[in-house]
Amino acid sequence: MKTLNINLGDRSYPIYVGQNLLSNTEIFHRHVKSKTIAIVTNDIVAPLYLNILIEMLGKNKRIIPIVLPDGEAHKNLDTLKLIYDALLTNNAGRDVLLIALGGGVIGDICGFAAASFMRGVDFIQIPTTLLSQVDSSVGGKTGINHPLGKNMVGAFYQPKCVVADIDLLNTLPQRELSAGLAEVIKYGLIRDPEFFDWLEINMQQLIDKDSATLIEAVERSCLNKAEVVEADERESDKNIRATLNLGHTFGHAIENAMGYGNWLHGEAVATGMIMAAFMSKELGWLSSSDYIRVSGLIKLAGLPITPPEISEKKFLDLMQSDKKTKNNQIHLVLQTSIGKAVLTKEYDSKILSKTLNNNFS
Amino acid sequence: MKTLNINLGDRSYPIYVGQNLLSNTEIFHRHVKSKTIAIVTNDIVAPLYLNILIEMLGKNKRIIPIVLPDGEAHKNLDTLKLIYDALLTNNAGRDVLLIALGGGVIGDICGFAAASFMRGVDFIQIPTTLLSQVDSSVGGKTGINHPLGKNMVGAFYQPKCVVADIDLLNTLPQRELSAGLAEVIKYGLIRDPEFFDWLEINMQQLIDKDSATLIEAVERSCLNKAEVVEADERESDKNIRATLNLGHTFGHAIENAMGYGNWLHGEAVATGMIMAAFMSKELGWLSSSDYIRVSGLIKLAGLPITPPEISEKKFLDLMQSDKKTKNNQIHLVLQTSIGKAVLTKEYDSKILSKTLNNNFS
Repeated sequence: MKTLNINLGDRSYPIYVGQNLLSNTEIFHRHVKSKTIAIVTNDIVAPLYLNILIEMLGKNKRIIPIVLPDGEAHKNLDTLKLIYDALLTNNAGRDVLLIALGGGVIGDICGFAAASFMRGVDFIQIPTTLLSQVDSSVGGKTGINHPLGKNMVGAFYQPKCVVADIDLLNTLPQRELSAGLAEVIKYGLIRDPEFFDWLEINMQQLIDKDSATLIEAVERSCLNKAEVVEADERESDKNIRATLNLGHTFGHAIENAMGYGNWLHGEAVATGMIMAAFMSKELGWLSSSDYIRVSGLIKLAGLPITPPEISEKKFLDLMQSDKKTKNNQIHLVLQTSIGKAVLTKEYDSKILSKTLNNNFS
Repeated sequence: MKTLNINLGDRSYPIYVGQNLLSNTEIFHRHVKSKTIAIVTNDIVAPLYLNILIEMLGKNKRIIPIVLPDGEAHKNLDTLKLIYDALLTNNAGRDVLLIALGGGVIGDICGFAAASFMRGVDFIQIPTTLLSQVDSSVGGKTGINHPLGKNMVGAFYQPKCVVADIDLLNTLPQRELSAGLAEVIKYGLIRDPEFFDWLEINMQQLIDKDSATLIEAVERSCLNKAEVVEADERESDKNIRATLNLGHTFGHAIENAMGYGNWLHGEAVATGMIMAAFMSKELGWLSSSDYIRVSGLIKLAGLPITPPEISEKKFLDLMQSDKKTKNNQIHLVLQTSIGKAVLTKEYDSKILSKTLNNNFS
């Protein structure tokens, strides 16, 4: 088991990465002090892992299982309310501990429930997808969607620990594994060219769910994210943490246009990263050969490289409502090389238009 | 104009107390940098002060007025959603500034909207009631109610400044003025015996809305609250900030039993403070003469001293769901003298039972 520490002053916490962690009572004894524990999970994950977790937590705990419908479409106020209702119906007090057992949707909504229930209670993340192990469970972003945009409501709120058990990925559908790889590739693209090189060599083992390779990919991804988050916990400097959003402004528009959940987040981000790379190439910021490497690796990861059909006007409207919009100007994360990205509004809008109309086939 | 500074590190902010502050462009120029401002107010306050505020903010700002239905009954998820909807429909970005123009309900819900919209945007409090000037606008507690309990969802989130304009109290109904005085009296009871003495002498001028006396009362109240909040911003030490909840566990149960808004918050707290004082006297912690002084001053402030008819069982159930409940034990703030209060669960439950059945007539 590897332990990475996220250093954020009094909000610091460890990330445990390894195998067989859901049976590691030592970790849980260290972090679970409360007598009452609410496990927030979904109807896909619950049959697989809920009882194992409950058993491991031991008999002297009061467990409130909260099983939500699966999917991004349910990451909304109504589902959040189900969590509040369950907690209050079961007389949970401010000493309750929430455990998020699931993917990014569960982590985000459970995290925001923890941030806001009684103005903040403790929570632990047990991410069950590659995407959530490498991305959403690290960094303290929590929240829910609004019909007018993704993650429009939420909080920066850190967990007490993250338990990234690679064994949980054994039950993960291949399509979701690929979606997680999109965010893994992103770290290479925005700040870690050596990691990008490593991914080009090891992509097939990752697709094949080789444990040692997965552990290394998760660890290197979390390290990258941790460094960014430590430098800028609350996204106050637009040029630090913002680069984590490479591909996301395009991607959020795709997810929104297609209805949340029809395109997986990672798939939309992957296509968004190709669009960003294409736009960077057209602007003369990224070489053609690097653009080909980017699209090649994304394809190798089993990810879509062509955006769905969305009119330019609709695309722009949806991108407009992104959180990175300031005074109605669309800010984008673009690439200057493999390993370097910048947040900018200084681009030729004709090239954005060309990107939105390109078919990438 | 007096300026009090709340010292909370990078979350520090000033409270301005005085007359004619809604015309003080200097204050607003100092704190309003954003081009887009959403003013969250209610349908009682809007006709009185919304246009004055909009005019003062000047022509080069984009104003999004959000007028909510008045009252505690609307401090809920549905109303919060109206704020998110208005912000997103108007393309507000992360640089929007929210201004809460209203009483405690508006301040709490607008504050939580600011805490959670796009994971946190700036906001300013312009409290228009005595209660919100002396209590809810200071300290960063924001939130909404849940059918199963008051303030069950929220965040600790500090404003950029608080503008407490005493002139706004001229339009405040007498009953609401009295409700505000409950929290003013509370500061005397929990930590400031000299202030309690001063209130016994000056209560009539306060009831008569004498400006100079009101300014002194607001200033001394805010100073008291600021000292408590500075010592314990997030209520982590149960014995510091928790004393601010004197009368509140009883009071919340009363509000909840009667339906939010039928009893004003300050009225419920006033009666709750009498119940706490009575219980403290019965426990032998508070002298009979001090108990009489407490109930005398509360009566003088025009506040109810007898709780509504609620069965002991229902009272206990409602108190159980209070945030101060830990492992199902009801923690109460009780008095050991005028000027000193403690949070405790070490009391004879028979005396709690006697208190809940007493008629205080």
